[in-house]
Amino acid sequence: MDFDSFFSRRLRGSAMPDHGLRRIGSPDMIQFGGGLPDPALHPAAELRRLFDQILAANEGGILGYGYEQGDAVLRELIAYRHRKEGGSAGADGVVLTNGSAGGIGLVAAALVDPGDVVIAEAATYPGALKAFRQMGAEIVATPIDVCGLDPTGLEAALKELDRDGRRAKFLYTIPTCHNPTATVLSLERRQAVADLAERHGLLIVEDNTYGDIRFGPTPPPLIALAPDRTIHLGSFSKTIAPGLRVGWAAGPDEIAAGLARMRTDLGISPLIQRVVTRFIEDGTFTSHLAHVTKHYRRKRDAMLASLERHCVDVAQWSDPEGGFFVWLTIPHGDVGEVLDAAEQEKVSFIPGTYFAATPGACSQSLRLSYGEIAEDRIDEGLRRLGRALAAVVKPDGRRRWR
Amino acid sequence: MDFDSFFSRRLRGSAMPDHGLRRIGSPDMIQFGGGLPDPALHPAAELRRLFDQILAANEGGILGYGYEQGDAVLRELIAYRHRKEGGSAGADGVVLTNGSAGGIGLVAAALVDPGDVVIAEAATYPGALKAFRQMGAEIVATPIDVCGLDPTGLEAALKELDRDGRRAKFLYTIPTCHNPTATVLSLERRQAVADLAERHGLLIVEDNTYGDIRFGPTPPPLIALAPDRTIHLGSFSKTIAPGLRVGWAAGPDEIAAGLARMRTDLGISPLIQRVVTRFIEDGTFTSHLAHVTKHYRRKRDAMLASLERHCVDVAQWSDPEGGFFVWLTIPHGDVGEVLDAAEQEKVSFIPGTYFAATPGACSQSLRLSYGEIAEDRIDEGLRRLGRALAAVVKPDGRRRWR
Repeated sequence: MDFDSFFSRRLRGSAMPDHGLRRIGSPDMIQFGGGLPDPALHPAAELRRLFDQILAANEGGILGYGYEQGDAVLRELIAYRHRKEGGSAGADGVVLTNGSAGGIGLVAAALVDPGDVVIAEAATYPGALKAFRQMGAEIVATPIDVCGLDPTGLEAALKELDRDGRRAKFLYTIPTCHNPTATVLSLERRQAVADLAERHGLLIVEDNTYGDIRFGPTPPPLIALAPDRTIHLGSFSKTIAPGLRVGWAAGPDEIAAGLARMRTDLGISPLIQRVVTRFIEDGTFTSHLAHVTKHYRRKRDAMLASLERHCVDVAQWSDPEGGFFVWLTIPHGDVGEVLDAAEQEKVSFIPGTYFAATPGACSQSLRLSYGEIAEDRIDEGLRRLGRALAAVVKPDGRRRWR
Repeated sequence: MDFDSFFSRRLRGSAMPDHGLRRIGSPDMIQFGGGLPDPALHPAAELRRLFDQILAANEGGILGYGYEQGDAVLRELIAYRHRKEGGSAGADGVVLTNGSAGGIGLVAAALVDPGDVVIAEAATYPGALKAFRQMGAEIVATPIDVCGLDPTGLEAALKELDRDGRRAKFLYTIPTCHNPTATVLSLERRQAVADLAERHGLLIVEDNTYGDIRFGPTPPPLIALAPDRTIHLGSFSKTIAPGLRVGWAAGPDEIAAGLARMRTDLGISPLIQRVVTRFIEDGTFTSHLAHVTKHYRRKRDAMLASLERHCVDVAQWSDPEGGFFVWLTIPHGDVGEVLDAAEQEKVSFIPGTYFAATPGACSQSLRLSYGEIAEDRIDEGLRRLGRALAAVVKPDGRRRWR
């Protein structure tokens, strides 16, 4: 039977780029692959204690439906964190989602009409591009440099749209611990982005999925700088565990109400909402986040030390200020060839083209994740990567991005 | 700021009917309202034990991502149940979803293009209508009678579409323990529906949300009668607990792969998937389902006995063969007036118009749910309803539907 004839244009247009990803999974490989947190950090014991307490009490409909917006106590805890960072959202401005990925899908369905323009960074989270394109978005890429989104480039893109009589509905951006490049956008640039959004009448969708894992001081989030036009997407997936599937969208009350009205899945689990609430209320979240951040900082340091040892002269890379990623650029060589050589050496990574907002772009770069990999495998993995790079890349004076 | 101008047509068109629902919630009311299971049946102790065991072992990525299709073991357990009922689905034909409501949303996004025709029963689950309309469906209502979907009416609707040169993409139907009318469609009618789908080249979306709670023998599901063109939506929300948010879509492998490809939310919690898997594997599900079914049968009996006592002469009602609902029809009276009178009497229900596939239809009916209500409140609740009915309805020879 021809099932394709039943599929919507949304589905038919929702293929993801492959770019050699099928080759990264074999078990004897050392993988610098996905954006997964370190399983050694999953707070299984604390969660076990909380599930036990909460199921023993079995109060307040924890095994019933979660409904559209989610538990008011957890929403208020999230709003409180945003207010501490300068935002103004209250509990009514927060919608709990199935991870930040669920928030992206909800935003896509609630905001994007076919033909709408969505601006995204030239390298970005491909799952978001997929969600926006499914709903019919035309993606316009805005340039990034070693410091992240370049407001000058954004302004040029907006002016070009204005000239064409078109309007961008929103800018999708990852200003803090960018995926895949690991940059943290400066306050000056954030302010410039907020001003441009105001001037050109577009919303900002601020994806903060990795933004809670920061190795130094960070400028305020865009939701604090442009509270009237920012939808902030957050997640507990990287800081507690992906298996909880709890994230949120925060923004103006009217937007939150719209997102809730778009929903038809009857919400996320109230049991798990309660677990997360208690995890925050009893102080575990604060201490766990400090522990997690320290752990990833140590892994980041190990990555940089091993890159110095094994990949010098053949690649440039970013100094991550947070998150899980190092963005490697190979000025003289082909990432496809590196992928072949890396397969031989039993090491894997994700090619830059996977993250490109414009097909084919980012072809000189690749992403290394130190999220999931065991700390004691990092050096051996990068030794293998160094050999793969050396086999195909012409040596060049390597320098760091910053 | 004019936030509405940022909202998609999908969102702007997704208002739900109200029909007096805001009046059903006050605390001193006896509520025959939502399709919620009885909280007294939530197996909190068994779930507590399983969460404890599973989090203590913390194996196999249970705190990681669930990904698009979900755990293969749970999918095979679900497929096995379908094969026992005559289906042919394997694990590859199953996608785990955020309850069956999540499955409905996924089906809507993956199949419905703006302008597509979706056929639905004249009274049906309004959340499904909302999801299909959000994605641009035009809903065509097909008539139901006291035995459920009328295949003659379906054939007429299909022929009319043919004459207009239009094609229905799918029929959305609830053949077993129908919401809101509680009917179980006969084998003959099921076969007729399957034949019509084959002849007219449409898919069937079989919503079986309440279908596991049956008080007698049931004909095979449509997925067994039309396996090549049926997407079966199942749920553990009514049989275990809504708070798990686990349901599934089962069908041809190509459809399941399409639904998985549509997904951008990174799947449902693998921790909860494991809990459900163990709940089934260790035999708890089978015994719990027997217990649950017996409990609802007893409540159904209490409903019918109290209706006989308090509502005779003013209403007709269905004999539910499963699920949570009694569908009450008032031949001589206005349901809006009954709603007003019921509010005075401190009893609530959901008016039939809420379930109408065509706005304004079902205006002589109302749905009573015995899912959530405590058993010992049923008689008093129906006594109040009887008073409300008597106040506004002219007496008439009442008769049962069957």
